Formats: sequence, structure tokens, C-alpha cells
Amino acid sequence: MAAKACSVLITGANRGLGLEMVKQMVESPWPVRQLLACCRDLDGTNRSGFSLAVDWLTFSPLCLSDAGLNLLVNNTGVLTYGTMQTTSTQKMQAAFNTNIMGPMDVTKEFLPYLQAAATASGKPGMSCSKPAVVSISSTVGSIATIKEILSPFSLPAPPFLSSQAGLNMLTLCATEEFRKDEILFAVLHPGWVRTDMGGEGGAIDAPESVEGLLCMMDSLTEKQTGAFLDHEGKVMPW
Amino acid sequence: MAAKACSVLITGANRGLGLEMVKQMVESPWPVRQLLACCRDLDGTNRSGFSLAVDWLTFSPLCLSDAGLNLLVNNTGVLTYGTMQTTSTQKMQAAFNTNIMGPMDVTKEFLPYLQAAATASGKPGMSCSKPAVVSISSTVGSIATIKEILSPFSLPAPPFLSSQAGLNMLTLCATEEFRKDEILFAVLHPGWVRTDMGGEGGAIDAPESVEGLLCMMDSLTEKQTGAFLDHEGKVMPW
Repeated sequence: MAAKACSVLITGANRGLGLEMVKQMVESPWPVRQLLACCRDLDGTNRSGFSLAVDWLTFSPLCLSDAGLNLLVNNTGVLTYGTMQTTSTQKMQAAFNTNIMGPMDVTKEFLPYLQAAATASGKPGMSCSKPAVVSISSTVGSIATIKEILSPFSLPAPPFLSSQAGLNMLTLCATEEFRKDEILFAVLHPGWVRTDMGGEGGAIDAPESVEGLLCMMDSLTEKQTGAFLDHEGKVMPW
Repeated sequence: MAAKACSVLITGANRGLGLEMVKQMVESPWPVRQLLACCRDLDGTNRSGFSLAVDWLTFSPLCLSDAGLNLLVNNTGVLTYGTMQTTSTQKMQAAFNTNIMGPMDVTKEFLPYLQAAATASGKPGMSCSKPAVVSISSTVGSIATIKEILSPFSLPAPPFLSSQAGLNMLTLCATEEFRKDEILFAVLHPGWVRTDMGGEGGAIDAPESVEGLLCMMDSLTEKQTGAFLDHEGKVMPW
């Protein structure tokens, strides 16, 4: 996958969906030219088997070429449980910092490289072979359907839900702001995955989710900029 | 208006829509029994004409009776301009603090009084004569329609838009969490109003907006809990 993308940067790459993305990209018959796997803390990350194919970063030093960055996958996120009554202001702030300001700051940091990729491509339209920013969000960020989604659960989790909705809106803001730069933006829901975050009760395994996500990324065009899609390509309500 | 509500608390009551709400409630032929007008800073607030009818607070001391609080109007909000490129993390945090954590913290602070009002009412169903929390949000918090809304403007304002979407989601979380307490939650869009926040180019004046808003509040029932409505009662898309 991401056969079209020359350079890819994935955040939160040391476990869960991020690590699975790195695995599948490396094992692909059409691997990307440069894969930057980022995480806050490299300690404990199982990097065996990836040493030659992957640059593991904690955001410095940068080693991107003049061709810039084609695909930024904002895969970070923290799932904070707790109702409004049991959630402190500080917990809300921490969720917003990681789930909204995290993707925003990373996007801004790599903006010159995304813009360079647009210039270097020389091709019209938008895709992951030009610059694209894909954020992994969740169906529980859908304000339109949250009532139905919540019904099987006992209680909502405002820090996670509110920050996911905020990330969705931020993505649409970025879509409009960077349309002139021909940077594609999209939000992808990975499904309910059996990872540390999704828990054992998830509906699918990480490999199935990531196969779908990478396939979706490959298929994105300017028609999907500002879209909210799941790992099977289904359009999600906002 | 709010003829049915015995006690009402309005935040951000020292100017704009909040001050107009206080005026119209005081001048109503059916004034509420207790009106608590709150703001962060009482200095500079024109309180003439309100001294007997309104308790002006900076959140202490509380003077609510055993009948509790019927209607909490979360009217605070800060409109932060700036694109993603020009907006710092600190500006985003400040917008979230005021527009999301503000209403959340005030709601939690007054929760015992809202619960007391539910007990004191002894009536079935939900309304502003039982406990209700109404947050003044904005149509620009609608993720579903933001693309159309943004088109006439040059650039989006992520801190405001993202925090309004987050507030909408928070309101739906609260709707489910406090359904068992029979507390009604709703989000109201006041229209584009000629206030300090809305600017001189607004479509309507504060008195017209507030007339509509108060009329809407009076009409709310359990069917509208978790609703997003404008000052004319139109259902807004999420």
C-alpha cells in the first residue's frame, strides 16, 4: 500500500494501529521510499526487522529530502474514560492537547515539507502521492450519531468524544485553509479494533483494520478532501 | 419569557446577549422569581435599573433556595480569530477552556441545585420549569455544514469552530449522563447578532435574537433534550 506515496510519516507508531501500519508498509511489494515512524518515547518499541527500512524518530533529526513529505498520518490519540461528573478540567485539557493540538502541531511542523511535496509533484489534483494529511479519528466523534452509538454503553466519555469532534472540525478548517496548497486532508475511522485502546471486545484485529485504512489512503483524491471515512470506505456522518 | 422558570442563572451577563436576556427577563410581565446574572468581572457592568430584580454574582455567594435552580444559561464564549498557521497551541487551549470547560465547570458547580429543582418540581417530563441547561453555541460549530458556511469567508477560525463543535458533543454527553436526573440539555444558535462578538455586519439585533431564544427556552420539552436549535426554532445540523 501507499504504493504511490514516496515518503510517509506516522505518529504513534510504536504500538497498536501505528505499528501495524509500519509493518504492512515495510512488507508491501511496493514499499514507500522513506518511512518515518514517530513516537514520543522510543524505549520499549520493538524495532527488530525494521532497522533498514524505517527511520524511527522522536521528531528530530529530520531527514526528509527536497521532495518533501507526501503523507502524514496523525495516528496519536488518547482514550480517556470518565463521565462529566468524574472528569476534571485537567483531564479534559490533556485529552484536547493530545487529540486535537497534537495533530495540529505535527501538521504545522511538517507544513513546509508537505508544501515542498506539492511543488515537487508537478501533477494536478490531490492524492497521497502529493501531500496528504490523514488523521485517525473515531466514529464516536460523530455528533450526528453519538446518541445511537452510546445506547449500548452505560455512560459517555466526554474527554474522548468531545476531542474527537473537535479534531473532525479542525480537519475541515485545515481542508479549507490548505486547499490552495493542494494538501489533501481526511479523517479515517479504523473500526472498533482489538488494540490496547480498543480493548479485547473489539470487532476486528489490527491487520484487517490497517489493510482497509491503507487501501483507503491509496484511493483518496481531491473529491475526498475533507471527508470522514471508515476503513471500508463508508462515508461517516459528522 | 421563562415564565415557567422560577430561578434562572445566566453566565456572561454583563454585555451582549447575556445582558439583553437579563433585560428582557426583568421587563417580562411574568418575571422569574430569582434571576442570577453572572460574569467574571462586575466592574464596568451597567447594573442600573436591575438592582432589586437581579442578583449580580461572580459565582459567590450562592443564594439559591431549596427549590434549586431551574434554568442555567451557559452564555459565555470567546471568538478567537486566526487560521491554523497563525494560531498557537496556547490560543487553542484558551478557546477550549472558555467555550467547553467553562460551561462544563459551571454545570458541575450547579449540579446539586439542578438536581434539587428536579426533586422540588414533582412534575413528570422535562422543561425549563424543571431543571434545564441551555448553552449558547453557534452555527459555525456545525461540522456538517461548515464547508458551506465558510465559503463566504476568507479563512476559518479553528479555535472557535473546533471548540463549538466540542461543546456540542459535550452537551450530548451531558444529555445522556443526566437523563436519569431529568435535566434537559440543549444548544441554541442565537443567529448572527450585532454584538461585540458578532460585529456590526450581523443580520439581527440582540433584542430580536433574545426574544427568539427565550421563546425557544420556554417551549423546550423532553422531546428537545439534546437538540441543537436556532433562535427561530429551526433544527440545526450537527
